[in-house]
Amino acid sequence: MIDPLETLKSYVRFPSVSTDPAFAEGMKGARDYATSLLEQLGFNVETVETDLHPVLYAERIRNPDWPHVVLYGHYDVQPADPLNLWTSEPFDPQVRDGRVYGRGTADNKGPTVVHISALSRVLEKFPDLQLNLSYVIEGEEEIGSPSMAKFFDSHGERLSKADFLLVSDTGSPNAEQIVVTTAIRGLVDLEIKLKGAKSDLHSGIHGGAVYNPLQALSEICASLHNPDGSVNVPGFYDDVLPIHDWEREQLARYPETVESYRDMLGVPGFFPANGLSPLEAVRFGPTLEFNGIGGGYQGEGSKTVIPSEAFAKITCRLVANQNPAKIQEAVIAAIEARCPDALKLEIRRGGSGEPYMVVPPGCPNTPADQPEPLARAFESAEASIAKAFGKPPIYLREGGSIPVIADFKNRAGLDSLMVGLFTPLDNLHAPDESFDLSIMENATAAFEEIICGIAGVK
Amino acid sequence: MIDPLETLKSYVRFPSVSTDPAFAEGMKGARDYATSLLEQLGFNVETVETDLHPVLYAERIRNPDWPHVVLYGHYDVQPADPLNLWTSEPFDPQVRDGRVYGRGTADNKGPTVVHISALSRVLEKFPDLQLNLSYVIEGEEEIGSPSMAKFFDSHGERLSKADFLLVSDTGSPNAEQIVVTTAIRGLVDLEIKLKGAKSDLHSGIHGGAVYNPLQALSEICASLHNPDGSVNVPGFYDDVLPIHDWEREQLARYPETVESYRDMLGVPGFFPANGLSPLEAVRFGPTLEFNGIGGGYQGEGSKTVIPSEAFAKITCRLVANQNPAKIQEAVIAAIEARCPDALKLEIRRGGSGEPYMVVPPGCPNTPADQPEPLARAFESAEASIAKAFGKPPIYLREGGSIPVIADFKNRAGLDSLMVGLFTPLDNLHAPDESFDLSIMENATAAFEEIICGIAGVK
Repeated sequence: MIDPLETLKSYVRFPSVSTDPAFAEGMKGARDYATSLLEQLGFNVETVETDLHPVLYAERIRNPDWPHVVLYGHYDVQPADPLNLWTSEPFDPQVRDGRVYGRGTADNKGPTVVHISALSRVLEKFPDLQLNLSYVIEGEEEIGSPSMAKFFDSHGERLSKADFLLVSDTGSPNAEQIVVTTAIRGLVDLEIKLKGAKSDLHSGIHGGAVYNPLQALSEICASLHNPDGSVNVPGFYDDVLPIHDWEREQLARYPETVESYRDMLGVPGFFPANGLSPLEAVRFGPTLEFNGIGGGYQGEGSKTVIPSEAFAKITCRLVANQNPAKIQEAVIAAIEARCPDALKLEIRRGGSGEPYMVVPPGCPNTPADQPEPLARAFESAEASIAKAFGKPPIYLREGGSIPVIADFKNRAGLDSLMVGLFTPLDNLHAPDESFDLSIMENATAAFEEIICGIAGVK
Repeated sequence: MIDPLETLKSYVRFPSVSTDPAFAEGMKGARDYATSLLEQLGFNVETVETDLHPVLYAERIRNPDWPHVVLYGHYDVQPADPLNLWTSEPFDPQVRDGRVYGRGTADNKGPTVVHISALSRVLEKFPDLQLNLSYVIEGEEEIGSPSMAKFFDSHGERLSKADFLLVSDTGSPNAEQIVVTTAIRGLVDLEIKLKGAKSDLHSGIHGGAVYNPLQALSEICASLHNPDGSVNVPGFYDDVLPIHDWEREQLARYPETVESYRDMLGVPGFFPANGLSPLEAVRFGPTLEFNGIGGGYQGEGSKTVIPSEAFAKITCRLVANQNPAKIQEAVIAAIEARCPDALKLEIRRGGSGEPYMVVPPGCPNTPADQPEPLARAFESAEASIAKAFGKPPIYLREGGSIPVIADFKNRAGLDSLMVGLFTPLDNLHAPDESFDLSIMENATAAFEEIICGIAGVK
């Protein structure tokens, strides 16, 4: 029997920071530990080499006629710094006030341990469970999953034989209200640089003659939204699907109001576009966001220069059915068309991720060909979560991006059942990351029932 | 007899960096050296204490009925760094290829030595020269002349008895063509900061709800110019005076074309406003310039944040008759009116400087009450420069700002005869600053004649 808390503490003690080569030993430790857990459950574990951190691919496949679930998680974590802001050491997990603190406790080692603990309990009770299982645990999620494309090249065919994907790498609002995530936004990344004179100029001697790159940049950036906040790029909204009533009804159950959301963020006001409320806009609407703009003097006080260049870092979050490549080109075309001749424009095309959406069974827009095991899993999840947490889940889109979820769909045909297990209190990617022990307990119980429900046992 | 080159070399050897307390000894050395030069000429030198670096106030006054000229210079220099870009040590002056290299050679020790050498020659020839002289040499010009207001409080009354000011702290295009500067632009400095959420936000989780401070900043900044490049602030141009034909005729003699100017700056094109050519715009037009804009992620690649704040550093260059305080308030009022409610606006009001203009005698807009000694000085300068340099000067406005020139006008009623002695090749404020020895020689000869002309001797 796997003890969830002790197992999570052991897993977190391996400092598996994927972005920093100094943590190679921690990466190997976390990988080996995850392998041993999967082997205890009877999985055959394959360590798939990549250019950087291997992917663990585990199978427990007994009969091609049984339902087949793929589970996904990642064994890598974000860097722990700034270290001085942690109450206890990031890789020495400590329990305080019903939470276990440590880097990776919530993202994503805790949810993985919940899955594995639930599986271990089910398989102990039903050693001959009529369910095929695959488990993918990657080690590069925190650096954008660069090796997963190759992994799908080699393993997509085997994965495509499964029925659906089970993931817990999304969020819920608090420890009482679980969200089953129905969509993840896509992502487009680009950077523009405007270049004027060959060096910074004296704003007295030359001011008035040249087009200040910061002025032109402001004008281009300002042109990318309409006064109502909507994105002013031809074609940007062409492929956006309508929002269904059931989605708004689900959101109405969300335990946060516009007022409580505003207080949480500390903003004087909101500015959602396209007639959406702030809570709707982050879930149902695409965005074009400036993540960084800079140029000229950045220090204290004043320095009277006309800078030689200026940059803007732009990302778009895309909703279901939008195409990242198409949007990236549309945004670039708009910027190119609006760049004045008096300046030189350079563009860096960054990475992108597809949006993804899954519709639960029983909705007006549920696909007619939804696989029966996926439908059963959704139904089982609803009942099990309602029982374990005392409230049924809310079905809700999420604003963040997990491109690998769309890859599972596009490369292996698998839709996802996404059960959100972390909350805003968990401090993901920040100091004092933690995981709620009541969620751990209730979710383990819920997943036990979900798995039984999929396998058709009680 | 003062030897110009050896005197300048001695003067430059005192590292008088006003902004850095580590150079206190160099400041004192330069001050003492300038004092000794003035005393050699028979000046009575007063060291006027300030909160920081004393002002030298020297007088050689014999008869209240004689013409009375005030000379102005500054004994402080810019910091010499980056030191590794200097060919020889910045405070060990070296002569190479007809130039003397060292920090301060052109700005402003060389021009001061030209004035003093010319005076020494004239006074040697005419010991009883019928000319009253005052000399103001300050030590804070490179840090914005903060102590000069107090100096005018204590000495403005005495200065107001003089006829005009003689200054060489402006530029000429090259060693053959001297410019007599007829105007200096004023300056307004301000900084705005837009604040949104209390910390940076995840652009996926929260993107779509909040008004990104960088987006709002771009929109506000973009609104500050019209599509034709003119400033879009109500009242901005209200007090701008018309440009006279004689000014355009003078500019036509300027030895630079739009093409050569473009090549020098290395810009793909120009963007002057209000129908001015690029060469006109920097001299005749006011500007609103972004010296620095920043916010959000500034490093390599991408980071998907919505920043909590963004800033823009703005300065305006003002032309004659514009009022800095009025313009500053007009710009701030426009920004406040255009700032969305969803963000908090903070404003830093920086310093300002008045614009200044003087019209040479014989122009259609020459003031009827122009003092006769000033008119005579202009005429003497024209003839003397023509003789020493082989070409008469061009009368031209300049784009930069020297607020103390307007202070002499406003606090002591003195107009300025500004003879530009540095050129773009002199690398002012940059490594390898130098001063052209042929300018030094010809200008010393010219000033000798100018002084004689003012005093009415040959």
